[in-house]
Amino acid sequence: MIDDTLDKPRVTVLGLGAMGTALARTWLAAGHPVTVWNRTAARAEALAPEGADVAATAAEAVAAGGVVVTCLWDDASVGASLAGVDLRGRDLVDLTTGTPAQARERAAWARERGARFVSGGIMAVPPMVGVPEAGGYAFYGGSRAAFEAAEAVLSVPLGTRYVGEDAGFAALYDVALLSAMTGMLGGIAQAFALVRREDVPLEDFAGLLAEWLVAMSGNATATAERLTTGDYTSGVVSNLAMMVAGNATLRRTAEEQGVGSSLLDPYMDLMERRLAQGHGDEDGPTGVVDLLAAR
Amino acid sequence: MIDDTLDKPRVTVLGLGAMGTALARTWLAAGHPVTVWNRTAARAEALAPEGADVAATAAEAVAAGGVVVTCLWDDASVGASLAGVDLRGRDLVDLTTGTPAQARERAAWARERGARFVSGGIMAVPPMVGVPEAGGYAFYGGSRAAFEAAEAVLSVPLGTRYVGEDAGFAALYDVALLSAMTGMLGGIAQAFALVRREDVPLEDFAGLLAEWLVAMSGNATATAERLTTGDYTSGVVSNLAMMVAGNATLRRTAEEQGVGSSLLDPYMDLMERRLAQGHGDEDGPTGVVDLLAAR
Repeated sequence: MIDDTLDKPRVTVLGLGAMGTALARTWLAAGHPVTVWNRTAARAEALAPEGADVAATAAEAVAAGGVVVTCLWDDASVGASLAGVDLRGRDLVDLTTGTPAQARERAAWARERGARFVSGGIMAVPPMVGVPEAGGYAFYGGSRAAFEAAEAVLSVPLGTRYVGEDAGFAALYDVALLSAMTGMLGGIAQAFALVRREDVPLEDFAGLLAEWLVAMSGNATATAERLTTGDYTSGVVSNLAMMVAGNATLRRTAEEQGVGSSLLDPYMDLMERRLAQGHGDEDGPTGVVDLLAAR
Repeated sequence: MIDDTLDKPRVTVLGLGAMGTALARTWLAAGHPVTVWNRTAARAEALAPEGADVAATAAEAVAAGGVVVTCLWDDASVGASLAGVDLRGRDLVDLTTGTPAQARERAAWARERGARFVSGGIMAVPPMVGVPEAGGYAFYGGSRAAFEAAEAVLSVPLGTRYVGEDAGFAALYDVALLSAMTGMLGGIAQAFALVRREDVPLEDFAGLLAEWLVAMSGNATATAERLTTGDYTSGVVSNLAMMVAGNATLRRTAEEQGVGSSLLDPYMDLMERRLAQGHGDEDGPTGVVDLLAAR
């Protein structure tokens, strides 16, 4: 049943993995007409009892109308699934995981086919979809007009953060935040490894650890200010020389505890390289960014 | 002038680097009688105009009375400075940076000499000393009686957190938190390196990044719970297999942006090793702790 006389706009979802399914379910529950398609049809059929209109092909799904949301395995799947499909006049919102370069190429590909294109990067896992209090959101980059037209729909399952006309920016922000998280998780793993063979009450320790990381997260803002002004030495609280002096204690303790410092060595090595270049009076973290990506 | 008829207890500070000086100044400003000694006498003399009693030798400083706070270059300096000094009946609070094993050995050394011993690990930099709103504190481990006797004094310059009778625990907690911070700072550096050659508003980006890291810091508590129960798969929101699938995008984006993934590779490699051992349904970070430090 396709009935676009309902109040809420139709959404077409291509790709029904865990995330696509969670998104489709949320729109269905909110009363949107939803067309679904999946390469393996069973995952689409499973949503029919909840009111989804199951399309036999991607082309049929796109033709059903409404914003087209793709949430496929990878960027190549987007190209393959939509090959030969008439996209003229359509708005594509691509939530497939990918890199900034892939998103930019896909944006050009969509424009050539007469569609407006928005790329999204989801900062949430499927159980957080449709649960506003879980705080999940997605970054969006690309056509501002298409984003604004779709925003009321997109904001149903997840918060929305538009980060600019560059279609690569959603993936860029997404990957940058996940990269920072990966570093933090590595640090957390190292911290637990250091204490776990000791008689340390782990949950009390975790509370102290989380509180400390929250306090230190302000480094992000300080680093941004210094990168922007180019002045890496003003207002420094803990300078590079002091931080490097501490590295020896981190390494030695890791050896004593039988853990090793391999998770931290690459960053400590970069700090030491920056210090050797004569930048001991700088803010600790800022100059390391130059070693990774000079401007 | 040594006048212990004043209301507030005397403090003896051995070692007047940036931290020792900041501590001594805070006690002086709070009206405590303070005896100071430093290997290079000029740093001690500099505090005389503020009311410090300058001792010519460490032995003289210790004999002046009050809790003895050592804040020296390294643990070996503590042994060297106090060699031959009569420590019988004294309370030593050692704030010198060191490892857990060094603190435990120093505690045994102090006990053999008839002193009670507390080791501290300072979670602050000198500008935060005596500034309660800066939130600086120190961990303390070792003699509970000595800690309790000194707490009113110790809490003047910094918050206090007593973590147990094991003298190694202050350094252990200190180093564990600093290790986690080092991981987080490496992640933050990676994030900025990914975006800095793009037209990204860095301060807006930093706000998003800090907010994200604060949200993700809850991983510490979840990891502690799983390590405690030994059940790594219950209540998992983002499992190891999902996180490892994301590693490829982090690596590929890092290559695209000309940054490389060397800061994140050791942790991603451990995740992949854990996955290869058949633990894809586990919580992402927890099992990595086993690879670093099996129980």
